[in-house]
Amino acid sequence: MLLSRFFLPVLKESPKDAEIISHKLMLRAGMVQQSSSGIYSWLPLGKIVLDKITDICRREMILTGANEILMPTLQSADIWKESGRYEDYGKEMLRIKDRNDRDLLYGPTNEELVTEIFRTHVKSYKELSLNLFHIQWKFRDEVRPRFGVMRGREFLMKDAYSFDVDYESSINSYNIMFISYMQLFKKMGLKAIPMKADTGPIGGDLSHEFIIIADTGESEVYLEKDYFSLEDNLKQVDYNQNLQKYVDKFTSFYAATEEKHDHNDPKIQSLNLVKTRGIEVGHIFHFGQKYSSPMNATVSHNNGENVPVFMGSYGVGLSRLVGAVIEANHDENGIVWPKELAPWDYNIINLKNGNVDCDKTCSDLYNLIKNLNKSVLYDDTNERAGAKLAKADLLGLPFQIIVGPNGVKDKLFDLKNRRSSKIERLSYSELSNFINENR
Amino acid sequence: MLLSRFFLPVLKESPKDAEIISHKLMLRAGMVQQSSSGIYSWLPLGKIVLDKITDICRREMILTGANEILMPTLQSADIWKESGRYEDYGKEMLRIKDRNDRDLLYGPTNEELVTEIFRTHVKSYKELSLNLFHIQWKFRDEVRPRFGVMRGREFLMKDAYSFDVDYESSINSYNIMFISYMQLFKKMGLKAIPMKADTGPIGGDLSHEFIIIADTGESEVYLEKDYFSLEDNLKQVDYNQNLQKYVDKFTSFYAATEEKHDHNDPKIQSLNLVKTRGIEVGHIFHFGQKYSSPMNATVSHNNGENVPVFMGSYGVGLSRLVGAVIEANHDENGIVWPKELAPWDYNIINLKNGNVDCDKTCSDLYNLIKNLNKSVLYDDTNERAGAKLAKADLLGLPFQIIVGPNGVKDKLFDLKNRRSSKIERLSYSELSNFINENR
Repeated sequence: MLLSRFFLPVLKESPKDAEIISHKLMLRAGMVQQSSSGIYSWLPLGKIVLDKITDICRREMILTGANEILMPTLQSADIWKESGRYEDYGKEMLRIKDRNDRDLLYGPTNEELVTEIFRTHVKSYKELSLNLFHIQWKFRDEVRPRFGVMRGREFLMKDAYSFDVDYESSINSYNIMFISYMQLFKKMGLKAIPMKADTGPIGGDLSHEFIIIADTGESEVYLEKDYFSLEDNLKQVDYNQNLQKYVDKFTSFYAATEEKHDHNDPKIQSLNLVKTRGIEVGHIFHFGQKYSSPMNATVSHNNGENVPVFMGSYGVGLSRLVGAVIEANHDENGIVWPKELAPWDYNIINLKNGNVDCDKTCSDLYNLIKNLNKSVLYDDTNERAGAKLAKADLLGLPFQIIVGPNGVKDKLFDLKNRRSSKIERLSYSELSNFINENR
Repeated sequence: MLLSRFFLPVLKESPKDAEIISHKLMLRAGMVQQSSSGIYSWLPLGKIVLDKITDICRREMILTGANEILMPTLQSADIWKESGRYEDYGKEMLRIKDRNDRDLLYGPTNEELVTEIFRTHVKSYKELSLNLFHIQWKFRDEVRPRFGVMRGREFLMKDAYSFDVDYESSINSYNIMFISYMQLFKKMGLKAIPMKADTGPIGGDLSHEFIIIADTGESEVYLEKDYFSLEDNLKQVDYNQNLQKYVDKFTSFYAATEEKHDHNDPKIQSLNLVKTRGIEVGHIFHFGQKYSSPMNATVSHNNGENVPVFMGSYGVGLSRLVGAVIEANHDENGIVWPKELAPWDYNIINLKNGNVDCDKTCSDLYNLIKNLNKSVLYDDTNERAGAKLAKADLLGLPFQIIVGPNGVKDKLFDLKNRRSSKIERLSYSELSNFINENR
């Protein structure tokens, strides 16, 4: 991508109304723009990262055998009255009347709607187990929206729903989602910690939230040190096996947020604990027949009986993740993308646009990188060198290739690793070897 | 994809409440499900086709150099009061109050919001021309939603917005979108007719709608016969050139809907007209400074003056297109997908699931097709042969490969072309040659 053709409205000053670092950096790097309280427009750079996160999440859901559907944003109030949650949900639910005075609402979650789809079409245990997921905008009318996309009102969520004929197979479906979450966060270059959680307005008997580690995270977390080696060794699993042993491994470690952590508990005295900070980015629930019973979503069992189907629901906060990833990956100069989520792999910086040698060299490099199937942003604008270098650090692509009039004469280029800040001076062939090997 | 693992709730009976053929077929083939009046859930098969249409549209926008953003579904009423459209829009606009009693609305279109984004960031002619597009759900509270996704209330639209410093470059941006629409409909396997149109609530001085031809379409259309050879010869154009000559060619033909067609006009007496039917699937508008003036979205001209920016907007009805494509491509047995939009290229039908030879042969074919990078749906269910064949015709994939216990003994297979209904009996090597050549 040529920067001159890319709409990237970078802010020079740090925005005053942003309280946390990810919000500041997303505004400064031209990733999002607030349109009203807690509601954001995604500008091209933000959209690219949101799409990468969404794509990794979607692929993992498909690997588990889940089927992708797409439910609408607006739902009829009727099904929420059936489940009994219409009144329960309180003011966070955005209630709407249409021109015919019918009650609609902007879905904050989709247990009711997906249960309605299920009960319309599925009647027999033979069609189970089934997992339906979708990726759609949700709305929760927060009292005080803040922290940018981390606690917005309109937000993008991946939510999956599992349906099983009995408790045991339902726990297996829960385990598949548990492990798939560990996989997808790892594929995003993030360290995730599963933690026993309260079930809140979703309900149920079993729930875990997934917290990713970030120094500037919202919650303090206590965790056994050995957890990290387990997480590091996680390989792609086959979802067709019984996954209980994997889940047991992850849940055998002590992990608790500040609120739940009891410093005086004798059981934890002997553990090698580390204190860190984290951000919740996923939450899974097993709630059995909580919705299927009142909504009469039953299937015939192989013994001929009709039973309300056993369900779970599984959410990943996709738009929230963009902020969370930045909380976990930044320094004083800007964003430092994990390579898995970087909008582009390389950033070519032409320090002297208009200089024939610099222009030619940059174009050659640009084509070389594209031909090696890596992605590249080429800063071909007329800005001064200092501003270009600062912008490149702000944008945080993994590698910068800096091309200036001095080096270009000797065919030497500076390759900067954004994370380590290390700069190497390389010849064209050394550089092209590096790009080739770094694929 | 194995059909046994794909959520495809096919209906045996034709749904009574569906008035038009595309709506009937989408319900029967398990593509969508109504969740409330004019609001649909997309089931896996529908989602695949919606994604294909969206993807073709997105790629063409990117080819033109447009930048993808993503604006939210809910907008503040304030900007609509600025433009003066808040009252104008009438009851089709879904108005919402949040918990703090602030006026929001579910965006029916995005001229105001994109103008606000523009005016925040762009100040100079040097940053123009600019085209921002997004793909997002919209809501129009139709008096009488009907015809399934063809006239839903919540619908998916691609809308692009162009910004230019003067009238001439603004017309160039309009022309780029005009031609990109001809390209993208062609890439979907559809015949599109551009027609001069009224500007309606969007406003402006110049507008075209794009109608695709379908025997069961909503409008009668009169068109010069020679138009079709021009459309057939359309090649990929380079968007960096002046496109006026291409636009002039397409608009030099007579084309009018029944309402605008004057049978007694002497000018059309000598034309070789054909009468056909069509469905509107795209609409483009040039409205200059209609929004930028009241909203004060100005840019500095190279003469130093500040001028309200010249704009156009360009919509494609993506969810509507799914219905429109089926209106244009079906027969009495079901859908007949154009190959460009088919959910899969091949449909393997195992007439005797459980027969060792049939199962083995079908698996081999399944792997063969996937290895040749074509997509395939394999009906590996236990349904009876007749039901499987009827379902395959209903789903309408371009080619069916029918494997039964008789043919399999002699290693012969039936290859059915869904569109022509022609069946050829082929050996394994003939079949694999066919698939290979048909890539």
